[in-house]
Amino acid sequence: MIVSTRVRVRYKDTDCMQVVYYGNYLTYFEVGRVEFLRQQGLPMSDVDQKVHLPVVEAVVRYVRPARLDDLLEVRCWVSERKRASFRFAYEIVSEDGETVATGATLHACLDPATSKMIAMPPWLRELMPVVQSEPKPSV
Amino acid sequence: MIVSTRVRVRYKDTDCMQVVYYGNYLTYFEVGRVEFLRQQGLPMSDVDQKVHLPVVEAVVRYVRPARLDDLLEVRCWVSERKRASFRFAYEIVSEDGETVATGATLHACLDPATSKMIAMPPWLRELMPVVQSEPKPSV
Amino acid sequence: MIVSTRVRVRYKDTDCMQVVYYGNYLTYFEVGRVEFLRQQGLPMSDVDQKVHLPVVEAVVRYVRPARLDDLLEVRCWVSERKRASFRFAYEIVSEDGETVATGATLHACLDPATSKMIAMPPWLRELMPVVQSEPKPSV
Amino acid sequence: MIVSTRVRVRYKDTDCMQVVYYGNYLTYFEVGRVEFLRQQGLPMSDVDQKVHLPVVEAVVRYVRPARLDDLLEVRCWVSERKRASFRFAYEIVSEDGETVATGATLHACLDPATSKMIAMPPWLRELMPVVQSEPKPSV
Repeated sequence: MIVSTRVRVRYKDTDCMQVVYYGNYLTYFEVGRVEFLRQQGLPMSDVDQKVHLPVVEAVVRYVRPARLDDLLEVRCWVSERKRASFRFAYEIVSEDGETVATGATLHACLDPATSKMIAMPPWLRELMPVVQSEPKPSV
Repeated sequence: MIVSTRVRVRYKDTDCMQVVYYGNYLTYFEVGRVEFLRQQGLPMSDVDQKVHLPVVEAVVRYVRPARLDDLLEVRCWVSERKRASFRFAYEIVSEDGETVATGATLHACLDPATSKMIAMPPWLRELMPVVQSEPKPSV
Repeated sequence: MIVSTRVRVRYKDTDCMQVVYYGNYLTYFEVGRVEFLRQQGLPMSDVDQKVHLPVVEAVVRYVRPARLDDLLEVRCWVSERKRASFRFAYEIVSEDGETVATGATLHACLDPATSKMIAMPPWLRELMPVVQSEPKPSV
Repeated sequence: MIVSTRVRVRYKDTDCMQVVYYGNYLTYFEVGRVEFLRQQGLPMSDVDQKVHLPVVEAVVRYVRPARLDDLLEVRCWVSERKRASFRFAYEIVSEDGETVATGATLHACLDPATSKMIAMPPWLRELMPVVQSEPKPSV
């Protein structure tokens, strides 16, 4: 269960160093995990009704800069699952197959009404099988 | 009643043409009008409780590019007021006094509960005197 | 010659009023015109080598708010052409066919080496036929 | 040597969950480290001429959400220094003194001409004393 999504680098995403601004990889990760959930039959609007999944921790490792108009592939999978939290891992790959960035986001499960931590709901757990090993060693 | 606010250009604001991305001037306008309202005793969080002021139309005229680390002055004033809408005008000026951009945003007044258009509330009207002429001819 | 591109609304694009932030429509316009040029055989990286096309003026009219996860269609066409400048017009349409926003960007043609205004190059002019009338009356 | 900078949360920074978008903390970190360097007499425009300091790795830990109009304090210091790289650490604190987020960015030193890794220049090393312990235990 590794879901791939394509993202085209916009002017908006770049900065005056002529590469993608470092914070924008977290936006690409967002696109990757939203498409992961959609492919599992879970559009974000539905998910948000049932459970909040705020990011508790995010890590990005920058390997090669991406540039304007690059067509990036965002690979997203579940790398870890605990009782009340889970981790998405990401790898962003260029069109010529080189790793651009890797990273991870740790998510908590919250009750949308009370904002209290809850155990990961079974229907969500089921749709999020853990992929044991990363496709490549990260940097 | 022209309110000036300073904004420092961040890497995040620039793009690979090494100037501020054209869409980000609307963010600088946002900063300008939020500070205009704050200076009138109206923090946005208070305003949003009483009346919604969505932007109905926005215009930007780009005069000279701004660059990384520039310290810009955002001038904001009310240029027009109608029964249920009003217009903010903006001028963005560089440290050496040159006009970087000018523009305007037209705002409607909506009831926050129903999202229906309402007449501009008197307490808001009072705090928003119209400045008849622009400080400089716009481009 | 109206080019359509699909854009999915990201969390990143929305703001705390739970709709797309007003400045981000200029990013959607950017995506629309870059895809217009690509479809004419002009990837941006090529264009930028030959001619700079900075935005001189931008206008957005906000008709209906777009929300998280909406799949928007960005329609882009050339609405006006002068000796040394031209205008792109845009219409953003929701999946149920409603107009979300309309707008335009006026572009100058600059020599990339000198940054001086130049006449629109014939090879560019040829690929940018003017579409006389907008598909719908704008707001 | 801990440098504090104030950042006001803009509409642009929030998302439809009504809190600051998770990727935008990396922008606040950027503001913090640029002001750190400015306070050391190094405006970014000067630094970029002499040495490139790309981010190689970034980490954010989200403690409490920040919201529209919050006035945040970004604390930035050097937490580690090696031969050819160094780490900035950050703590973002709300007006009532609560930790909002913590994090770090690891930077490499590159020759701006060749983009090759170089030892941290002595003039930079001198201006970046390591602060041994974090002001608070991070999450």
